[in-house]
Amino acid sequence: MGLVTTLPRNETGIETVVGVLKQQLGERLQTSEAIRTQHGHTTTWLENQAPDAVAFVQSTEEVADIVKVCATHKVPIIAFGTGSSLEGHVNAAAGGISIDLSQMNGILDVHPEDLDCVVQPGVTRKALNEYLRDTGLFFPIDPGADASLGGMAATRASGTNAVRYGTMKDNILSLKAVMPDGSIIQTGQRAKKSSAGYDLTRLLIGSEGTLGIITELTLKLHGIPEAMSSATCSFPDLESACNAVIMTIQMGIPVARIELLDALQVKAVNGFSKLSLPEEPLLLLEFHGSEASVAEQSESFGDIADEFGGTGFSWTTSSEERTKLWQARHDAYWASLSLRPGAVGISTDVCVPISRLAECVATTQAKLEELGIMAPIVGHVGDGNFHTLLLIDMEDENEVAAAHEFVSWLNELAISMEGTCTGEHGIGQGKRRYLEKEIGAGVDVIKAIKTAIDPDNIMNPGKII
Amino acid sequence: MGLVTTLPRNETGIETVVGVLKQQLGERLQTSEAIRTQHGHTTTWLENQAPDAVAFVQSTEEVADIVKVCATHKVPIIAFGTGSSLEGHVNAAAGGISIDLSQMNGILDVHPEDLDCVVQPGVTRKALNEYLRDTGLFFPIDPGADASLGGMAATRASGTNAVRYGTMKDNILSLKAVMPDGSIIQTGQRAKKSSAGYDLTRLLIGSEGTLGIITELTLKLHGIPEAMSSATCSFPDLESACNAVIMTIQMGIPVARIELLDALQVKAVNGFSKLSLPEEPLLLLEFHGSEASVAEQSESFGDIADEFGGTGFSWTTSSEERTKLWQARHDAYWASLSLRPGAVGISTDVCVPISRLAECVATTQAKLEELGIMAPIVGHVGDGNFHTLLLIDMEDENEVAAAHEFVSWLNELAISMEGTCTGEHGIGQGKRRYLEKEIGAGVDVIKAIKTAIDPDNIMNPGKII
Repeated sequence: MGLVTTLPRNETGIETVVGVLKQQLGERLQTSEAIRTQHGHTTTWLENQAPDAVAFVQSTEEVADIVKVCATHKVPIIAFGTGSSLEGHVNAAAGGISIDLSQMNGILDVHPEDLDCVVQPGVTRKALNEYLRDTGLFFPIDPGADASLGGMAATRASGTNAVRYGTMKDNILSLKAVMPDGSIIQTGQRAKKSSAGYDLTRLLIGSEGTLGIITELTLKLHGIPEAMSSATCSFPDLESACNAVIMTIQMGIPVARIELLDALQVKAVNGFSKLSLPEEPLLLLEFHGSEASVAEQSESFGDIADEFGGTGFSWTTSSEERTKLWQARHDAYWASLSLRPGAVGISTDVCVPISRLAECVATTQAKLEELGIMAPIVGHVGDGNFHTLLLIDMEDENEVAAAHEFVSWLNELAISMEGTCTGEHGIGQGKRRYLEKEIGAGVDVIKAIKTAIDPDNIMNPGKII
Repeated sequence: MGLVTTLPRNETGIETVVGVLKQQLGERLQTSEAIRTQHGHTTTWLENQAPDAVAFVQSTEEVADIVKVCATHKVPIIAFGTGSSLEGHVNAAAGGISIDLSQMNGILDVHPEDLDCVVQPGVTRKALNEYLRDTGLFFPIDPGADASLGGMAATRASGTNAVRYGTMKDNILSLKAVMPDGSIIQTGQRAKKSSAGYDLTRLLIGSEGTLGIITELTLKLHGIPEAMSSATCSFPDLESACNAVIMTIQMGIPVARIELLDALQVKAVNGFSKLSLPEEPLLLLEFHGSEASVAEQSESFGDIADEFGGTGFSWTTSSEERTKLWQARHDAYWASLSLRPGAVGISTDVCVPISRLAECVATTQAKLEELGIMAPIVGHVGDGNFHTLLLIDMEDENEVAAAHEFVSWLNELAISMEGTCTGEHGIGQGKRRYLEKEIGAGVDVIKAIKTAIDPDNIMNPGKII
């Protein structure tokens, strides 16, 4: 259905570059089909477009050297972290070199006194938090997958904690990047704020590898809260659950996480994880603060839940019980897939102003029913962001067509509600057609910037625009 | 000393454009010397460079029309809010048309349920908060001056509340802007987060009118806290005060404001406002939250102050007493000027990682003494950001030379401490020479973007780069 476009290949250039890089990198340049395919897009319904070779890089300077070779021969470069992106971001639409940053996984500096750290892009969020454990600090952004921090920056990722801690754009102080001509830039230093020139940090965050390759990140850290509490509550219908969320946000309760599972998602989790939750919409919450504050927040939410017909409300600060309460959320993805073995899961990602959330989720559920698509809903609803996971038999043309229809319909619905077609996954290949609907002539500005910085379009061609 | 450069003027183009606009705008195009001078830079030691005419605009479409006329004739356009910027941002270095946005002061929409609002750029922060008072919401960014929100966006402003609420970049959901070709773009909609394409919102924030003219802002709002408390405490020396700040931040106390006044600043305020504060470094704090939470925060800070030799610690939630405690801060600017009547005040604006704050402030004070410059220090120290206000007799060449020496020295000191030459004032004309020291080859990327979006350099020429 045209989500993936194949672009013209520069065969001569590619052949030359692969030869040169083989000389430079030896075994760290791989061209086997298995490795190439694994570095094309593998985690979604988008067709796999494998690169011609994969370079396992070890330093910023090495990335710069490779980019210079590719720039000379006008050969595409696609940055690769862990491959967990969802919209075809790492597909090699015109072939070229995948730069695998997983070996650049050093934590270069931790400044506990400044609440920041400097890391290489291949460090995953879990690895960073594991490393930080003894410092009393943590990095809060949690997109679910154990993504690389470079990839999370490149896609402007967020996830469950964003309602309190913001997204990647709010938690990066500065970046080091290799630009399309091989030059190395540092977008800023470690001051907590700066008004020095255009915000190149934020320009690179969310640029999906189309402007440069991030090779170092200076990240903000947060103190591990003195106390955390978790709460769950079931609701008679989606509107009630969403309305409880809306009121929680409007009352300024500084909730850290507030996640919605619809009845189908709860059913999936019950089956998958041997739970016996009421098969009704469920909210899962987490509160961070002092002992007194998390108790106050939990109880305030309990009162709100009550007002909207919530049942089975419970909360706890015990770590073990918290894990149990959140199990339904942690298992959601695999539980969903188990609803229909063999089906491919297609994740949507709209985000709307919170006043439109209840309406948007309810309309979405009705549309899924109308089209006969099985698709559990989970959402980072405190931000107005939710996902449906369409379970589609890719062999059935009618189902695939229905999935396409639904995805288009949902993205346009969100845009018509003053929202966005992507809260956190990014545009990649899959959502290019919606970008103009969302930001109109802004697309021309994006194109002008792209052309100015990467005139030969060698950085991840075929993405965003 | 070269802070202000005069660029070549396009006399024919300017003459033509002034004629055309006079036809279009009538009385809303002003060319009197008084009005032109008032729209050049007036609030600092930088030389005034008046525009050729001032257009008092009333709509986005009108701005677009004017920009198209200027684009056709390659005539500079300088956006003007309230003129409170400090680094020559509104000077007409090559002449041209000042676009005064003060009549575009409508509050277009308030969405209390989404905690956002849509405003025109001429609305000032105080006017917005006055308007919002009955909604229980407020816009937190407070740079001191009652600046226009468009200007605050253009310079990436922040101020006293930033330690808790962030800067302009964190409190704008999207922007409408007129680009150099007269096209109108909307950078996003009202979703709380989005990963849709390059972050054009953040690219315009801090672009100082060099990429486009902001004509509408969608702002995040915050609930007015249930309770606020204020605290003050004196310290035996600057290091102790700074160390108390550092520990407050490191312990994760969610302080809303934490401001430092040095002994000279306190002396100035005592004289100006008839107070009798101990003439020692003073910290002023504000805490936002529930009654219980602000009490807890205030007392936690009291313990920290104690540890660093703080004296006279007191805190209160009473609105009247809070105003009294904060009087010293509110009067700081005028009190400083009263220390030396006739002198011009030159405000510096460095920001360093908080671990370097005590050292940076102490070194700064020693350097001021060495150079014999009278300059009180105030700071938004929770972010590592502080200002000195140099009191200079502009008729005395030696003093002016010493001021230049000091400003250069301080900016370079901050950069050498992994900080920035501007935490919140911006680059304008005054700090162009430091930008490359701070971000190196990043300047080339800024130039490439500027050239791509504004190839004829008509948008606020001579600023940032």
